[in-house]
Amino acid sequence: MKAPKGFTFSGIHSGIKRKKLDLGLVVSEDFSDCVCFFTNNKVKASPIILNLNNLKISNSQVKAIIVNSGNANSFTGKQGLKDAQLINKELSKLLNIRPEFILSASTGIIGKRLPVGKILKNLNRLVAELSPDNFEKFSQAILTTDTQRKLFFKEAKVSGEKVRILGIAKGAGMIYPQLNKATMLGFIFTDVNIKRSLLIQACKEGVDLSFNSISVDGCRSTNDSVFVLTSKKSYSYIERKDKNFREFSLQLKEVMLSLAKSIVKDAEGATKFIEIEINSARTKEEARRAGLAITNSNLFKTAIYGENPNWGRIISALGQAQIPLKDNISIKYTSLKAKEIRLKIDLKRGKYSWRVYTSDLTPDYIKINSSYS
Amino acid sequence: MKAPKGFTFSGIHSGIKRKKLDLGLVVSEDFSDCVCFFTNNKVKASPIILNLNNLKISNSQVKAIIVNSGNANSFTGKQGLKDAQLINKELSKLLNIRPEFILSASTGIIGKRLPVGKILKNLNRLVAELSPDNFEKFSQAILTTDTQRKLFFKEAKVSGEKVRILGIAKGAGMIYPQLNKATMLGFIFTDVNIKRSLLIQACKEGVDLSFNSISVDGCRSTNDSVFVLTSKKSYSYIERKDKNFREFSLQLKEVMLSLAKSIVKDAEGATKFIEIEINSARTKEEARRAGLAITNSNLFKTAIYGENPNWGRIISALGQAQIPLKDNISIKYTSLKAKEIRLKIDLKRGKYSWRVYTSDLTPDYIKINSSYS
Repeated sequence: MKAPKGFTFSGIHSGIKRKKLDLGLVVSEDFSDCVCFFTNNKVKASPIILNLNNLKISNSQVKAIIVNSGNANSFTGKQGLKDAQLINKELSKLLNIRPEFILSASTGIIGKRLPVGKILKNLNRLVAELSPDNFEKFSQAILTTDTQRKLFFKEAKVSGEKVRILGIAKGAGMIYPQLNKATMLGFIFTDVNIKRSLLIQACKEGVDLSFNSISVDGCRSTNDSVFVLTSKKSYSYIERKDKNFREFSLQLKEVMLSLAKSIVKDAEGATKFIEIEINSARTKEEARRAGLAITNSNLFKTAIYGENPNWGRIISALGQAQIPLKDNISIKYTSLKAKEIRLKIDLKRGKYSWRVYTSDLTPDYIKINSSYS
Repeated sequence: MKAPKGFTFSGIHSGIKRKKLDLGLVVSEDFSDCVCFFTNNKVKASPIILNLNNLKISNSQVKAIIVNSGNANSFTGKQGLKDAQLINKELSKLLNIRPEFILSASTGIIGKRLPVGKILKNLNRLVAELSPDNFEKFSQAILTTDTQRKLFFKEAKVSGEKVRILGIAKGAGMIYPQLNKATMLGFIFTDVNIKRSLLIQACKEGVDLSFNSISVDGCRSTNDSVFVLTSKKSYSYIERKDKNFREFSLQLKEVMLSLAKSIVKDAEGATKFIEIEINSARTKEEARRAGLAITNSNLFKTAIYGENPNWGRIISALGQAQIPLKDNISIKYTSLKAKEIRLKIDLKRGKYSWRVYTSDLTPDYIKINSSYS
């Protein structure tokens, strides 16, 4: 695994958390072309508000992303926005660029002021440790209740050339992103050289099939963000929907899906990973809505924890989502005793399919979340 | 406590359940005027489909309601409907009326055929035990995972005359009714003599403020039903929106609210009862939507179980529901250590208020629901 050309990474401990790494930085050698997706929660964390503003000014050209864990800097008002701005400004001096070319992300508890002093004090060290090899440290610095780092790598062959795609994410709870409009953070770095409109299309399709198709607990964060950055350092240029585009899109989708699945597999307290395939729906949207309705049913999720095939709860969840059900609907499970379960539902209404991913609801989820603060 | 004039009740054990009472019957001496509310789940249980049909034919005139617990007769197809019809038909012979004047309700597991034989064999005994005093037995026969019967009684003074209102309900899990469009069953019997349009108005307002303002687990049943029956045996007639109407409406609302709260207090595995008052909303609808968004947040509900004032989760839930939040929003809790908790949220947006009711999410909820079948 090698980082895509044109990126350096670092991850350090700044003291927001007691012991673990809590501050990460990615710097693009030249400007990267960026496609971003943020939460559709009406409450948006300070870094997201700042990013939306910066992306307009920079025309989506990005030089760096700074990320902290341990504090969401969300619902922190004007002070929160000032704090995020101050960090950007100080970092921009060290990197010798304008602050608008820096994006930021925060994750952790909502409603508490970001410990800005700790971050500012450590910016020098954060920059000093930048290296193409430090992506693993970066991937650790962004974690919260995650039990493992989430990092996936693929290569796409574009006109014989190997284009690299590196995906990094965090997330374990408050997971029901609808990005578009994502509580999870996802970072995808690539060196593909591609026309912007095509990159946007590939990213949108990828995000819909991955991050927008998972739910741990039906709760949507104020901080969900997915950043796709390309340094465009590859030689071959993708400018139309050809074989190269399809190959790159496929590999991008694979990285996004691996990240999204890894979030669900690391879901707080979960003992099962469940893939739900909805077939024969009238539309793709119906298939996805049917799938997500099941992923958000506490009763379905507790039944799976109990290895109990209570399919009446699936029927009830589909009906609650106003999906018209036929008597000949088919519901098939693989073994409920396994750690990974596949559920196939055939709605017998049309020809469209969608896959969604979820976890079981367990006493450990409640233990983790009844004391989290 | 005395049953409203004109009703007799019975509750027996027919063998659907191993030991507990599982079959109940109410019979109206003359015809009762009936206002019904059923689930807005797209999948509707067989008794609901049959009721909707019967109510049209009978012009909402009702002679009897038969109720079984232990089986929901839901998603049981044409067989399920035939089963419900057969029971109605046999009962109609015993009561010497047409089957269209009988309503029915079922509660229990979804997707299994109703044990019709057991019910038919016991119809004679069910009718033989009818008595004005057996409402308590009826209230027991309709329970499933409930730990206690739910029965409330009020009197309304109408022109000096005492009009009786008796409310009976069941429900503990799969509770997020939106009736209008209710998994719970609610029965309200009264002898009020009232113009039908006024009865409908009083019932709608009552249902909105009570059953439509509770959530245990955000899961909506295929069997939710609320039946309001009046024998009209009282002498005084309510025909306009006067003092008498307001007094009756108030007492009806009190009975409905007591029933709805008792369902939440008996929520599966719950250790806390939470009343959420949303104030200063732009509209009533906004206040209600804000409240229900919080009642359906697993993260909020686990925090309450942990007696943890993680108000960031309230903010996040409100934002997910697309409620625009001001920085000066106020959130006040009574002691989180108490069994009953009041939460007051001031949105500072307008002048409308709404109250909703929910329970905490606990390891016991998962225990109960991982093995229920």
